[in-house]
Amino acid sequence: MIVVLKPNTQEQAEKDFIGYLKNLGFDVHISHGVDHTILGLVGDTSQMKSESLTVHPVVDKVVRVQAPYKRASRAFHPQDSIMRVGENQSGVTPAVIGDGSVAIIAGPCSIESEEQLVGIAKAVKASGARFLRGGAFKPRTSPYSFQGLGSQGIDLLLAAKKETGLPVVTELMSITQLDLFNDVDVIQIGARNMQNFDLLKELGGCNKTILLKRGLANTVKELLMSAEYIMAAGNDKVVLCERGIRTFDPYTRNTLDLSVVPYLKKESHLPVVVDPSHACGMSWMVPTLATASLAVGADGIMVEVHNCPECALCDGEQSLTPAQFDELMQKLRKYAAVEERAI
Amino acid sequence: MIVVLKPNTQEQAEKDFIGYLKNLGFDVHISHGVDHTILGLVGDTSQMKSESLTVHPVVDKVVRVQAPYKRASRAFHPQDSIMRVGENQSGVTPAVIGDGSVAIIAGPCSIESEEQLVGIAKAVKASGARFLRGGAFKPRTSPYSFQGLGSQGIDLLLAAKKETGLPVVTELMSITQLDLFNDVDVIQIGARNMQNFDLLKELGGCNKTILLKRGLANTVKELLMSAEYIMAAGNDKVVLCERGIRTFDPYTRNTLDLSVVPYLKKESHLPVVVDPSHACGMSWMVPTLATASLAVGADGIMVEVHNCPECALCDGEQSLTPAQFDELMQKLRKYAAVEERAI
Amino acid sequence: MIVVLKPNTQEQAEKDFIGYLKNLGFDVHISHGVDHTILGLVGDTSQMKSESLTVHPVVDKVVRVQAPYKRASRAFHPQDSIMRVGENQSGVTPAVIGDGSVAIIAGPCSIESEEQLVGIAKAVKASGARFLRGGAFKPRTSPYSFQGLGSQGIDLLLAAKKETGLPVVTELMSITQLDLFNDVDVIQIGARNMQNFDLLKELGGCNKTILLKRGLANTVKELLMSAEYIMAAGNDKVVLCERGIRTFDPYTRNTLDLSVVPYLKKESHLPVVVDPSHACGMSWMVPTLATASLAVGADGIMVEVHNCPECALCDGEQSLTPAQFDELMQKLRKYAAVEERAI
Amino acid sequence: MIVVLKPNTQEQAEKDFIGYLKNLGFDVHISHGVDHTILGLVGDTSQMKSESLTVHPVVDKVVRVQAPYKRASRAFHPQDSIMRVGENQSGVTPAVIGDGSVAIIAGPCSIESEEQLVGIAKAVKASGARFLRGGAFKPRTSPYSFQGLGSQGIDLLLAAKKETGLPVVTELMSITQLDLFNDVDVIQIGARNMQNFDLLKELGGCNKTILLKRGLANTVKELLMSAEYIMAAGNDKVVLCERGIRTFDPYTRNTLDLSVVPYLKKESHLPVVVDPSHACGMSWMVPTLATASLAVGADGIMVEVHNCPECALCDGEQSLTPAQFDELMQKLRKYAAVEERAI
Repeated sequence: MIVVLKPNTQEQAEKDFIGYLKNLGFDVHISHGVDHTILGLVGDTSQMKSESLTVHPVVDKVVRVQAPYKRASRAFHPQDSIMRVGENQSGVTPAVIGDGSVAIIAGPCSIESEEQLVGIAKAVKASGARFLRGGAFKPRTSPYSFQGLGSQGIDLLLAAKKETGLPVVTELMSITQLDLFNDVDVIQIGARNMQNFDLLKELGGCNKTILLKRGLANTVKELLMSAEYIMAAGNDKVVLCERGIRTFDPYTRNTLDLSVVPYLKKESHLPVVVDPSHACGMSWMVPTLATASLAVGADGIMVEVHNCPECALCDGEQSLTPAQFDELMQKLRKYAAVEERAI
Repeated sequence: MIVVLKPNTQEQAEKDFIGYLKNLGFDVHISHGVDHTILGLVGDTSQMKSESLTVHPVVDKVVRVQAPYKRASRAFHPQDSIMRVGENQSGVTPAVIGDGSVAIIAGPCSIESEEQLVGIAKAVKASGARFLRGGAFKPRTSPYSFQGLGSQGIDLLLAAKKETGLPVVTELMSITQLDLFNDVDVIQIGARNMQNFDLLKELGGCNKTILLKRGLANTVKELLMSAEYIMAAGNDKVVLCERGIRTFDPYTRNTLDLSVVPYLKKESHLPVVVDPSHACGMSWMVPTLATASLAVGADGIMVEVHNCPECALCDGEQSLTPAQFDELMQKLRKYAAVEERAI
Repeated sequence: MIVVLKPNTQEQAEKDFIGYLKNLGFDVHISHGVDHTILGLVGDTSQMKSESLTVHPVVDKVVRVQAPYKRASRAFHPQDSIMRVGENQSGVTPAVIGDGSVAIIAGPCSIESEEQLVGIAKAVKASGARFLRGGAFKPRTSPYSFQGLGSQGIDLLLAAKKETGLPVVTELMSITQLDLFNDVDVIQIGARNMQNFDLLKELGGCNKTILLKRGLANTVKELLMSAEYIMAAGNDKVVLCERGIRTFDPYTRNTLDLSVVPYLKKESHLPVVVDPSHACGMSWMVPTLATASLAVGADGIMVEVHNCPECALCDGEQSLTPAQFDELMQKLRKYAAVEERAI
Repeated sequence: MIVVLKPNTQEQAEKDFIGYLKNLGFDVHISHGVDHTILGLVGDTSQMKSESLTVHPVVDKVVRVQAPYKRASRAFHPQDSIMRVGENQSGVTPAVIGDGSVAIIAGPCSIESEEQLVGIAKAVKASGARFLRGGAFKPRTSPYSFQGLGSQGIDLLLAAKKETGLPVVTELMSITQLDLFNDVDVIQIGARNMQNFDLLKELGGCNKTILLKRGLANTVKELLMSAEYIMAAGNDKVVLCERGIRTFDPYTRNTLDLSVVPYLKKESHLPVVVDPSHACGMSWMVPTLATASLAVGADGIMVEVHNCPECALCDGEQSLTPAQFDELMQKLRKYAAVEERAI
């Protein structure tokens, strides 16, 4: 940690402050510049609040040198983390995220009925999806919008899993729902809950892969700190997910930040998935963004598919039909071939 | 709801779509323009998803005319809502938010010890604060930062309430903590939980005033929809709180959006409180923003006060000392006098 | 244009307002809803300021149906616009943007010397670039930073054009520099000048292709309106350029908004180029974003290349070396082959 | 300037890099931490591009300690700068910005006719305005919107100045218009031109007060650097103006960032004016924000006033009537009295 002192700090005040830092257990390297004195703190600063130092009257600014995340950081874990999902379950086709292949996750935004879900599940499997997604608990801006089928939705999802053998991904909104998720393979934490820290801590105790979506206005650093919460609580199986951020221009639902994929893969060993459907909110744009997601090196792509987008109870406007999804898969295979990646 | 059809929509397709809308129970007014046909939907569209219509191939855009909130809307509730807190409790001085007076809420960011909290509580009371704030459960970006004293912190807060008679405000982060909040007067929902919809629904069943903070990147409409969640679930006692939004410029911790105060008071009957401390993150700027909050018509102002900012376990850099708070109160009284408001 | 009247508007006030609109020359279609009356204005509203109507006391809101741009709009010009650059100049290899091929523009951020520029020009030509870029007039945040070589830089650029036959792209910052640009092939208007309307108007009179960069905080609609300025002033040869927008997260220099490419190509007939170098500001990320730019359908990609990034006078940190650029071109060729596009 | 080296940098590479820095003329202080080596550069780094260092393979990050602005910085100029406008002109009432008084600037968005302008000028003068504002050259998003009366507008503005004795403020959009501004008292540079660096440089040579508006998406640091451009070119008479920034929420036209006022006044000696009219874009909200501007310590407030907002050719929706302006002035006087400031 680097501490820059204010210009014209009195010698005694500087001395006192250095004494204070040494008492906290740090070695302090002093560098006197023309206008500023700079202190380098040596020691374990990970639990040190940089802000607390800025309160001191002699301090001008504090710069943290080390990233505040450790478990999520590639610096401390150079090899890629690989998530193996659905292993050792009879009737389930295991699937992998993070081994260099392109993991395709597809399904409807909301689970609406067994017929709908199983139909879509079979279709996306036939086209090459490795995971089935579907929402049972739905975070909706309005209390008057469809809130999902809840526990009944989970039952339907598990029925579709049984029918197709696809591992399933679904969103958890509250700790109180956790018991229902025993047979779910990947627990999704939505953008709005990315900093629901109590929920994150609870996930540390469950032995499941967590798909952690970046919040609408959360920095990369905050996303990695939220992953760190889950990992520090005991669960290393975290997959990061970019789904669009909020900017000043509403022409898309959110602004897909594809630069985050190579950046996260450099900073962290965790796999990164992209959800182009929620990002753009327009079905015609989804295939284009999905191929771009592959181009930037995403470990997986999550796509909303609905057999009847115009009658969908949620987010129909961003859902592909099974036929459109099949066409997309053909294109993604060509891109994967260029990158010499399995899909 | 207004639906604009695509230019060059075929007559039959238009007819079919109008038939579809009528089947949904709407009256449809048709207006043929030079390039566009415009449909006015008459009927209860509050549960209609405008997005679902955009999926139809003939639709160019959909414009919602009515605000999506009802209970929170001033249109449906013209008089100001007034929150009376701490009534009928022996030893407690009741306090009011929303009756035209300026409600001052003050206290430390985190509860650290009985001595710290009671000392601050007495000081802010003496200066004119009507509510004591203090965090027992703290949402922190890093899992390695101080997470608050938890249930022990609630105990200390209630001790300070007993000692001073001030009604208390503290943050709830999870449904599972609710039992501990029985004697808390105002439950704060933090910015990161503004769209934790399960938590909001749960608050509908509790007979307490809720201080709902605007999320870092949430629109005014979303804030009112989150209030609507609590109200639709049965609890009308919601106070809205502006605490800064996230923008491109990090010179302040967040960007305090003071325009939101007059706008919310026009759109909604709910009281509006401003938290300048979290917004700017710098103690020297807090008094300035506090007076501006009064100038824009806030019903209350929430200020962080700490007896020793440099040894605070959280957010010391934005805390006023009791002496600075007392000075601020003197200034606020002058501003309140100009506005002919009690304080 | 749609005008929504306030709830409870008096019949006479409504009548008066409709009379006012008819006087302005519009046909008015009236639709009475449960709470709201909606007026559809039929006629040429392109010069009507929607805001001016909102001043009227009976008006609740005004919704514009038609896009405010005409010349830039695909609705009025369905075929793609194709820019042919450098034709009929002896010694110059003509190049095209917008015909389905991928136009590669490469060169240094700033022109520093003849040796530097010609060396880079030859290298990028050998690797497959079709245009040479280089800045002579540099917009710098600080008055103390290197401001470019100015007119001498233009001379060096033209020398490099002569040497290599590559058409050249360079930035114009002020009308007063226009005379120096006679032999420049493509005039770049930088992000900070996207709404320098006097400059845009002046470009209407010059018979050159204009590369118009999107401002850091400008919407898609504003970008198209700025193109409209140039086109309305008489010059249809506009190429749009995405170079990253400003968001809350500074981990990249700007946030590259790749969704804008398919969206612009749907809304407009003008070609779209992406500049990944300025967007991310980190050379190692440029190739990844360049391939993604191709994947989303960009008509061209503009890449900064410097023979010695660490001694560059400007933006060295985002420049590829000629060898890195050559490697990138090999990858782009594979992606172009998937898309069956020439490069 | 502080340079943090990458973890595990080889001893020889570190040595070489330090040699390189010393060759550039810096003293280098070295601090070896557990994971990182930190270098403190001592010497004049104001012309050093911090980015150029990041290109070096051993560099992890570079932190600038000194603010990049000098002339605009309070550190180098502790006393407030005071702008005296309209002195020594017969028939003109001189006015001051920055001496502790509250300077009120009022007038229409656009100059439309002599009758309109003189009428408004007399009214705002009677209510207490010290400056008349009015736009002759108007930056409009659409080329089809009213572009202002141009040079004829300047003539009308000067006629109104003669009639009332009020010093006048009007916007300059291009260097080519500068000759017309000889008798204008304060030249306004609009938000869209804040980084039109050629224009800024030109203003260095003119002996007039410049009202520099913050760009829609420009940081405080960038605003001060743009002031620095004007000052470095020879003109110290710069007034900074906050007029709202662009954020994710469009409920106001822009988001007024009032925190910037105390922050700018701490960082810089230049006066700061607030324009609440353009910020919110709604006339009913302007008085509220104007009083808040005074509360945060603005040196001046600029308010749009129109005798007939509903027939204004530009921005009528945000204009006060003369009667509303007079009412606002009465309120501002009460606030100024609290602050013991003249108005």
